[in-house]
Amino acid sequence: MRIGVLTGGGDCPGLNAVIRAVTRRGADLGHEIVGIRHSWRGIVDRDVVELDRSAVSGILPRGGTILGMARFDPFLEERGVERTLAGIAELRLDAVVAIGGEGTLAIAHRLHGAHGVPVVGVPKTIDNDIGATDYSFGFDTAVQVCCEAIDRLHTTAESHNRIMVVEVMGRNAGWIALHAGMAAGADVILVPEDSLPIEDACDAIRERHERGRSYSIVVVAEGYALTRRSGEQEAVSQGSDAYGYVRLGGIGSVVADEIARATGYETRVTVLGHVQRGGTPTARDRVLATRFGLLAARLAHESRFGRMAALRGDRVVDVSLDEATGSLKLVPPEWLAAARQIA
Amino acid sequence: MRIGVLTGGGDCPGLNAVIRAVTRRGADLGHEIVGIRHSWRGIVDRDVVELDRSAVSGILPRGGTILGMARFDPFLEERGVERTLAGIAELRLDAVVAIGGEGTLAIAHRLHGAHGVPVVGVPKTIDNDIGATDYSFGFDTAVQVCCEAIDRLHTTAESHNRIMVVEVMGRNAGWIALHAGMAAGADVILVPEDSLPIEDACDAIRERHERGRSYSIVVVAEGYALTRRSGEQEAVSQGSDAYGYVRLGGIGSVVADEIARATGYETRVTVLGHVQRGGTPTARDRVLATRFGLLAARLAHESRFGRMAALRGDRVVDVSLDEATGSLKLVPPEWLAAARQIA
Amino acid sequence: MRIGVLTGGGDCPGLNAVIRAVTRRGADLGHEIVGIRHSWRGIVDRDVVELDRSAVSGILPRGGTILGMARFDPFLEERGVERTLAGIAELRLDAVVAIGGEGTLAIAHRLHGAHGVPVVGVPKTIDNDIGATDYSFGFDTAVQVCCEAIDRLHTTAESHNRIMVVEVMGRNAGWIALHAGMAAGADVILVPEDSLPIEDACDAIRERHERGRSYSIVVVAEGYALTRRSGEQEAVSQGSDAYGYVRLGGIGSVVADEIARATGYETRVTVLGHVQRGGTPTARDRVLATRFGLLAARLAHESRFGRMAALRGDRVVDVSLDEATGSLKLVPPEWLAAARQIA
Amino acid sequence: MRIGVLTGGGDCPGLNAVIRAVTRRGADLGHEIVGIRHSWRGIVDRDVVELDRSAVSGILPRGGTILGMARFDPFLEERGVERTLAGIAELRLDAVVAIGGEGTLAIAHRLHGAHGVPVVGVPKTIDNDIGATDYSFGFDTAVQVCCEAIDRLHTTAESHNRIMVVEVMGRNAGWIALHAGMAAGADVILVPEDSLPIEDACDAIRERHERGRSYSIVVVAEGYALTRRSGEQEAVSQGSDAYGYVRLGGIGSVVADEIARATGYETRVTVLGHVQRGGTPTARDRVLATRFGLLAARLAHESRFGRMAALRGDRVVDVSLDEATGSLKLVPPEWLAAARQIA
Repeated sequence: MRIGVLTGGGDCPGLNAVIRAVTRRGADLGHEIVGIRHSWRGIVDRDVVELDRSAVSGILPRGGTILGMARFDPFLEERGVERTLAGIAELRLDAVVAIGGEGTLAIAHRLHGAHGVPVVGVPKTIDNDIGATDYSFGFDTAVQVCCEAIDRLHTTAESHNRIMVVEVMGRNAGWIALHAGMAAGADVILVPEDSLPIEDACDAIRERHERGRSYSIVVVAEGYALTRRSGEQEAVSQGSDAYGYVRLGGIGSVVADEIARATGYETRVTVLGHVQRGGTPTARDRVLATRFGLLAARLAHESRFGRMAALRGDRVVDVSLDEATGSLKLVPPEWLAAARQIA
Repeated sequence: MRIGVLTGGGDCPGLNAVIRAVTRRGADLGHEIVGIRHSWRGIVDRDVVELDRSAVSGILPRGGTILGMARFDPFLEERGVERTLAGIAELRLDAVVAIGGEGTLAIAHRLHGAHGVPVVGVPKTIDNDIGATDYSFGFDTAVQVCCEAIDRLHTTAESHNRIMVVEVMGRNAGWIALHAGMAAGADVILVPEDSLPIEDACDAIRERHERGRSYSIVVVAEGYALTRRSGEQEAVSQGSDAYGYVRLGGIGSVVADEIARATGYETRVTVLGHVQRGGTPTARDRVLATRFGLLAARLAHESRFGRMAALRGDRVVDVSLDEATGSLKLVPPEWLAAARQIA
Repeated sequence: MRIGVLTGGGDCPGLNAVIRAVTRRGADLGHEIVGIRHSWRGIVDRDVVELDRSAVSGILPRGGTILGMARFDPFLEERGVERTLAGIAELRLDAVVAIGGEGTLAIAHRLHGAHGVPVVGVPKTIDNDIGATDYSFGFDTAVQVCCEAIDRLHTTAESHNRIMVVEVMGRNAGWIALHAGMAAGADVILVPEDSLPIEDACDAIRERHERGRSYSIVVVAEGYALTRRSGEQEAVSQGSDAYGYVRLGGIGSVVADEIARATGYETRVTVLGHVQRGGTPTARDRVLATRFGLLAARLAHESRFGRMAALRGDRVVDVSLDEATGSLKLVPPEWLAAARQIA
Repeated sequence: MRIGVLTGGGDCPGLNAVIRAVTRRGADLGHEIVGIRHSWRGIVDRDVVELDRSAVSGILPRGGTILGMARFDPFLEERGVERTLAGIAELRLDAVVAIGGEGTLAIAHRLHGAHGVPVVGVPKTIDNDIGATDYSFGFDTAVQVCCEAIDRLHTTAESHNRIMVVEVMGRNAGWIALHAGMAAGADVILVPEDSLPIEDACDAIRERHERGRSYSIVVVAEGYALTRRSGEQEAVSQGSDAYGYVRLGGIGSVVADEIARATGYETRVTVLGHVQRGGTPTARDRVLATRFGLLAARLAHESRFGRMAALRGDRVVDVSLDEATGSLKLVPPEWLAAARQIA
């Protein structure tokens, strides 16, 4: 069997660990492994590389992906599906392991369902918002990076009687903010899921300072919309300019501004940005990514297509791609309650 | 209610996060929190300290425990139980949150069962071998520390055509070795659970080198007993001298010696030792420890004694202390298989 | 002798190491050590704390300062000098060790010169721009933090064919940008000292991409002013709003915008912010801060006032405060040349 | 010109940074760069690889060396010099940049002096014991690794009332022990240079514990010989067995044993081993290694052979290889005094 493997969407620590596991396990099971470069585009462009044990040696601790990524959707390109199918045939691929987020997995699902492409999915998102898996690799690393940064901000905040606002990633979910905030002892955590009014945040800060604490740490998920007690929400542009190129966190500054005005305390913003997506994965993410890769190789080996690796509890299982691309997983009430109880 | 909290057994990253969560949540629920110093001994010695929000401020990222630890078993001391009961009465403790490993939890269980002491347990072990919980805090940090060390050893091994043997903790279980080995790409992982014969390890290393790789990384759990194909096992003294004071890993050196003799390759040993037990916890361990602490405060608040916090899947639940102290959790076959498939 | 010690200005990793060294060495030399809280304000407010070995135990690895900081200038306050002198007298201080940057040291110098206050200075700046010392503590930590962040950005940039712009601190000097850029392999480094025209930066990026590299990392010092080949410079507001509270790096976004427009490549900005100022110091900064503290204690002990600790080559020496506050130390041509040769 | 570059001796963080700088700068100056594999042996074996910008892309943050290392001395091999000279001729090398420690540099010096080989040296040692340079790259990383490990041990020591003995590298010099010990707040530092009697160390620990501190951290340089007040010294075998393969620190265990016997306190040993030699270099080491590489390329370019890069104060200068290989640089009295004052 010839098994292709591709990485789609945004960067995520652990991608190389998946590629390595698919390659080593696939080879042990007697298959040829083909790395497809720049996501689905590599199929269309016949841009591939043979992978063997030696090709994946040393990549486990490295961030990024040796295959490159791209945002390329065959369904949006002219004759995209046709060219993709032709590419798969010409490359003689008997299976395609697609490692990616919501978008990549939806493409995989549709190619499988409507066109019979033999795909296996591996979920990838630092945002932890894919519904079919309890956790996805990359998330633990993102949280750890944020936690270390907030640890550093603590001492500066303490020494200077300041409010530090930290904007973290997470798209429409508050998972990173919630975990990093709990891990690093944030005083206020603002996530999309409960839309805490900014006035409540300011009150909490004021009460804290009245109790004698002279600084506060506020963690804001990028997906939080500024909410007022009146229920009014202000959409915050994510900072892209007319060219769509530059993106500098928006909501962090807006929240800092509001807090500064409302409380009169000196306030500073840190936007961690893509530091959260790159670099060496934590041990936990490497193990999870490896387990996903091992299962993906087995699913391909057993021709169980249309399935995806997922974590349920502590077990790695396979689920239908259909299930995987159904709905986003938001932070549930019990997690929000835990965060409120400790903050 | 006056809730005492104590930490028993060996050091473990995340202890302070539990103490902080019990204190903050307990206080919010209207209770007084009393820190008991040096485990059960602090009850006997009336060595306690009042804890409030301010007392636990800033401790979240710190390793160790602000309460100190000790190995003190009331059941082994003269009139130990009697003095413990008297201490609890005199200190007016309505609940005792006991954070500890197998030993501490067994004491808690017995004090509750036989003497009606109102205890709540929180499992603590870097070894991850407590049966009633999927994971315990401290384990993730230990694995991360080992993984970072092995990452560093990789480059030295590569540059020098060497075998690097790394001995890690874990007592009778191979959890740390297995996870750190998978995370850092070890070539051979030796754990107590499957007693891989040393000859097999040497063969694997030789085959690898014949395939052209000029170095190998071997991770050995401290609990692995040197095993031969004949089935013979050699118990390895853990290096304590006649005074019982000094302990320098034993099995790592023995394994290195065997490999060096059998393969002729230059071999080096690293014993990470207590570096695995100390220092700042990972974000994940801080979150888990905090969740355990929040639940422990609630169990005390609701007078649900004889219970212990545990992680099941991604949920924090309470289980009976009876269940918790039943049996050690060893690495199951599916984990061993995964490790074999990738190594 | 009663030796007061204070920390002024902005946060800087290593402050606690200086306080610890002054306290331990001062006590060993037979003196009482008094911690003055919130910089010079603590003298005016009689806000002090006695320091002994136990008070400084455990603070060595911690960022921030146990004494708190403030921006307080006696020469700008009403009767500020008079109240400061009265405070020193009432607190019976025979010496004041002032740990601070340009501003704090200038105040120390003036109090000594014009009013005979027995001061000893210790230079502190993450920006490394104090002329009288080759290096100051805090700088190495700031560079290391930036370097680790850029390491992480590399993999994301590589995987996505992107330009990553990283804005780092440094005030009017390019030291942090230059060192972090060299350490992390930045492709373009923009510092105030040589005012590289933005068109040159864009050309360098384009040439690099034409050679086949599909991504670039650009490090910008916050003090860099956008410069055009025409010689025109655009001052970039540092992002403080009307309230002066919020500060979110300005020049990074401006540079990213220019590059995106000129090259057409997708561009992202990261502003590391106060993460660079907080948290545990590197080993090197701890050693340097400790050596400065040891010398400061000796200078006080020997009543050699108006002097400041400084690093010259690898030796810690004392220099006149006059010399210390003379001029900023900018990046010299040979460093700029080295950076150009490797980028 | 064809410039060969080789790495000799033991592993050291920063080697790849030197190779990268020599390659990039050498190429910019119009030369061909040839990587020689496995030190001098690669010349004899004609085992070389052409290096260009692309070959050294991405290696800056990586530990180890892309060229491999070996301990190979042409002067000890049969017809070694003859074959080396023949290799240089056949490979058409106009210059050889030799990056290495004492041994490698001595070979370079002799090949140049006695046989006219056009060599340029770059000093490499984590031990910081090469006399001609104030600091060598790799040292800062080794100290940082030790410091982080000791930080972790602190919390365990504190929580358990223990003595932690940490054995660090450094060969016959105490530089790593001294810096790591100062940086991490060790209570006792044992280095070869001052041969502190073990009884003094035990007294210091006892006094500390009598003052109320319940734990101590002892850092021992591997080169320290157990010394008694009587002046007697005990050589400690470095743990190599009959095969010379296995090496597990000796002196750390011996010191721990002595302390445990003399004080009665529970004592633990950690031997960091090769973790100190591998992995990503600190920012500072990357900058220093890069500067050395830039100068080496220039020295080759200018045919200034028999010279070596060195750091003097903050300047990178060239010195004669003669000077470089003269004598080891031990820790001088003023550093020892500083360490005593703070411990």
